[in-house]
Amino acid sequence: MAEEEVVLEEEMYNKEALDELLLSGDIDQFREEFLELHTYDQGEYFTESSDEYRDKIYHYLSPKEVAEFMETTEMEDDEYDHIFEEMDARYASSMFEEMSLDNAVDILKMLPKTKIASLLLLMDKETAGEIKALLHYEEDTAGGLMTTEFISVSSLSTVREAMIQLKEQAPQAETIYYIFVLNEKKQLVGVISLRDLIVAENDEYIEDIMNERVISVNVADDQEDVANIMKDYDFLAIPVVDYQNHLLGIITIDDILDVIDEEASEDYSKLAGVSDIDSTDDSMFATARKRLPWLMALTVMGMITASILGQFEDTLSKVALLAAFIPLIGGMAGNSGTQSLAVVVRGISTGEIDEQSKFKLALREAGSGFITGLSCSVMLFIIICVLYKTPVLGLIVCFSLTIAMTVATLAGAMVPLVMHRLKIDPAVASGPFISTTNDIISMLIYFGLATTFMSYLT
Amino acid sequence: MAEEEVVLEEEMYNKEALDELLLSGDIDQFREEFLELHTYDQGEYFTESSDEYRDKIYHYLSPKEVAEFMETTEMEDDEYDHIFEEMDARYASSMFEEMSLDNAVDILKMLPKTKIASLLLLMDKETAGEIKALLHYEEDTAGGLMTTEFISVSSLSTVREAMIQLKEQAPQAETIYYIFVLNEKKQLVGVISLRDLIVAENDEYIEDIMNERVISVNVADDQEDVANIMKDYDFLAIPVVDYQNHLLGIITIDDILDVIDEEASEDYSKLAGVSDIDSTDDSMFATARKRLPWLMALTVMGMITASILGQFEDTLSKVALLAAFIPLIGGMAGNSGTQSLAVVVRGISTGEIDEQSKFKLALREAGSGFITGLSCSVMLFIIICVLYKTPVLGLIVCFSLTIAMTVATLAGAMVPLVMHRLKIDPAVASGPFISTTNDIISMLIYFGLATTFMSYLT
Repeated sequence: MAEEEVVLEEEMYNKEALDELLLSGDIDQFREEFLELHTYDQGEYFTESSDEYRDKIYHYLSPKEVAEFMETTEMEDDEYDHIFEEMDARYASSMFEEMSLDNAVDILKMLPKTKIASLLLLMDKETAGEIKALLHYEEDTAGGLMTTEFISVSSLSTVREAMIQLKEQAPQAETIYYIFVLNEKKQLVGVISLRDLIVAENDEYIEDIMNERVISVNVADDQEDVANIMKDYDFLAIPVVDYQNHLLGIITIDDILDVIDEEASEDYSKLAGVSDIDSTDDSMFATARKRLPWLMALTVMGMITASILGQFEDTLSKVALLAAFIPLIGGMAGNSGTQSLAVVVRGISTGEIDEQSKFKLALREAGSGFITGLSCSVMLFIIICVLYKTPVLGLIVCFSLTIAMTVATLAGAMVPLVMHRLKIDPAVASGPFISTTNDIISMLIYFGLATTFMSYLT
Repeated sequence: MAEEEVVLEEEMYNKEALDELLLSGDIDQFREEFLELHTYDQGEYFTESSDEYRDKIYHYLSPKEVAEFMETTEMEDDEYDHIFEEMDARYASSMFEEMSLDNAVDILKMLPKTKIASLLLLMDKETAGEIKALLHYEEDTAGGLMTTEFISVSSLSTVREAMIQLKEQAPQAETIYYIFVLNEKKQLVGVISLRDLIVAENDEYIEDIMNERVISVNVADDQEDVANIMKDYDFLAIPVVDYQNHLLGIITIDDILDVIDEEASEDYSKLAGVSDIDSTDDSMFATARKRLPWLMALTVMGMITASILGQFEDTLSKVALLAAFIPLIGGMAGNSGTQSLAVVVRGISTGEIDEQSKFKLALREAGSGFITGLSCSVMLFIIICVLYKTPVLGLIVCFSLTIAMTVATLAGAMVPLVMHRLKIDPAVASGPFISTTNDIISMLIYFGLATTFMSYLT
């Protein structure tokens, strides 16, 4: 174990050695060491280097070599800004020309509009045109994910002809493992895997061996739907078509991995009420600044709860022990509400929840809220009777708890369902929001009941 | 849009038509329709069918045909139990023989031990042996994910020889897109992609064109680590080796997609305090039963908060308005604690947090808790002064809020970090647990302060 662990946890390259080669100006040695690394590690080294070192890197490597690691390296928006301000514009535009189109577009989208325009001007016309076309698609759609560098053959060609075309197109193609089959109108009519092509006889016609049941996505489809399809069908790439079934591009599995990760992080962030969960290297102040708007809004909501409770000052001053159960009732409503919120939000993301089952699901959540609320209440009633010997208080607390948990689970399920229905992104229905709303509801129930049955308490 | 949407949201097959063909006994027509479907859709049809229909499916299809969709279909453990009780054991064992080894093992692992043993007895010795070997690996490790059906060539062969071997091994291989290169001791020394092989000259030696910097994982590595590596490096498959670098198997991207999904769901479930988030089709009672243990534990914890508050009955009965701010202070401590818990848990999962940055991270969280706490408190103090004209109460509430939020963020970050350090799964550090713990801490701070400064309040 030990040996392998070390390899995984430590860096796969020697930063100091590379730094030294850069400084000493030993171009050949630096190139040899650096280019032997996997592009991911090259990117890691690059992002960890200072401007001064990066400037040397541009001198030591060709735009093509920089492009290779740049397209697999993930950085923050402002880091890209900074890098492309430093980098010579001509060097940068040749670098973009060397990238996969989809990756070039992803990076360009993070730069200021004027910068994009000036870089496009310096590129060769064909690439600039293709990039411009891709820049139009919205980021979270199939169009925003796809690349136009796919391999396609005519349905009327033979296996031999297809193999020749494949070898020609391979160097530019994003994947060579699926070959898409087009009719004379350039419409997608089939797909054939490289595997099938390799085991087929040379004289067979593509038409006869292709898979006609090709599953495609529309260019306007949401990236989350695309990810779910690719996951279900275990595709390595999926074709993207327009409304007339013309093949526009393909989306490959590596981009989908990022989407799945991104969407999971998004759901997770919402539940926690954090806007940007994956930035563990922000400073204390940056972190505080990001979380503050949310927390201030929640403070104001908390003030609403406080005002409501303030109305019950009379009740509270008569039976002070009532206050002792405020955190319990509010907390349990919050907990069960968050549980049902989480199940529903996740169900919507993974596409498990469809139109028909929505009503049933809300009902199930409310039902399970009632059952768990009742069970917890029975247990709590016994504890309160034993500890405080106040069965009337116990009844009020437990009755409130049951109702609060039922309402909270129903609210937890309904809010994202209704938002999804109204095509609103359920971002507002985050965990803290639901918890605080449930605080308000549960306090109204609790003190409403307590005030009504006041005479039995005192 | 409309047309494509329909295809995506509706089923890709006609269940009624297939049902009818099954019932009418039209074997040829059924086979034609069914086998034209993608295996994912075949599996969907199969899982939605009743026992009676499934029995017919076994008669109409060969074990190989059933194997093809069975290995890509995900079902619950008890569904597998049920299916393999119904299915003829000989049919079942031939079916497992036809599957990819890793998928066969995944399904077999869900069956009772005696059933596995009896099925293995019916299989051919070679397959049974390979399956037995794979059954030994723990589920969440690289060994548990890998398949032994990979393509390997000797480093001394030529491209031509390699292509011949590839064609031979292709039908059984899980992926043909990476060919692993072994030395005479069967140790992994390189990798070459099919793409590189196709563009290489026939007479070149594999040794000369292979990539020697092959990145592998150890058979005992955690599946989450494997997933992070594959995501970072954009691999379609990664080799799995033992401690002497012998190639044992490969893990393909489709299995990793499931792991990423599974791990994200796991983190998400923990944050929400739900054990099994992806089961939206459970009944009301099943849902309640799953959530009840958690909720009961939290009720007991809530009872601890209530007892602590009970100790402050005197303070409460003197200044009833103090109770009004209980939900606010407890809730905000819960919210900010959950935020920092979420960031840290996610950071651990994605491997972004390493040993060195842990202390810095805890410090950052506490600092950002203090800054946000102070900011919210200043705002809250103004509101309280305006609404209630009680600056002393305002000071106590706001002072408590600042401390509570600082402690809560620190606790939210420390709990998972310490657990990770102690190699305990941070499952106990779920969102509701942290919220309830923070409730207790914040109430102690709030009422401790209020009691101390009682004289200024009344």
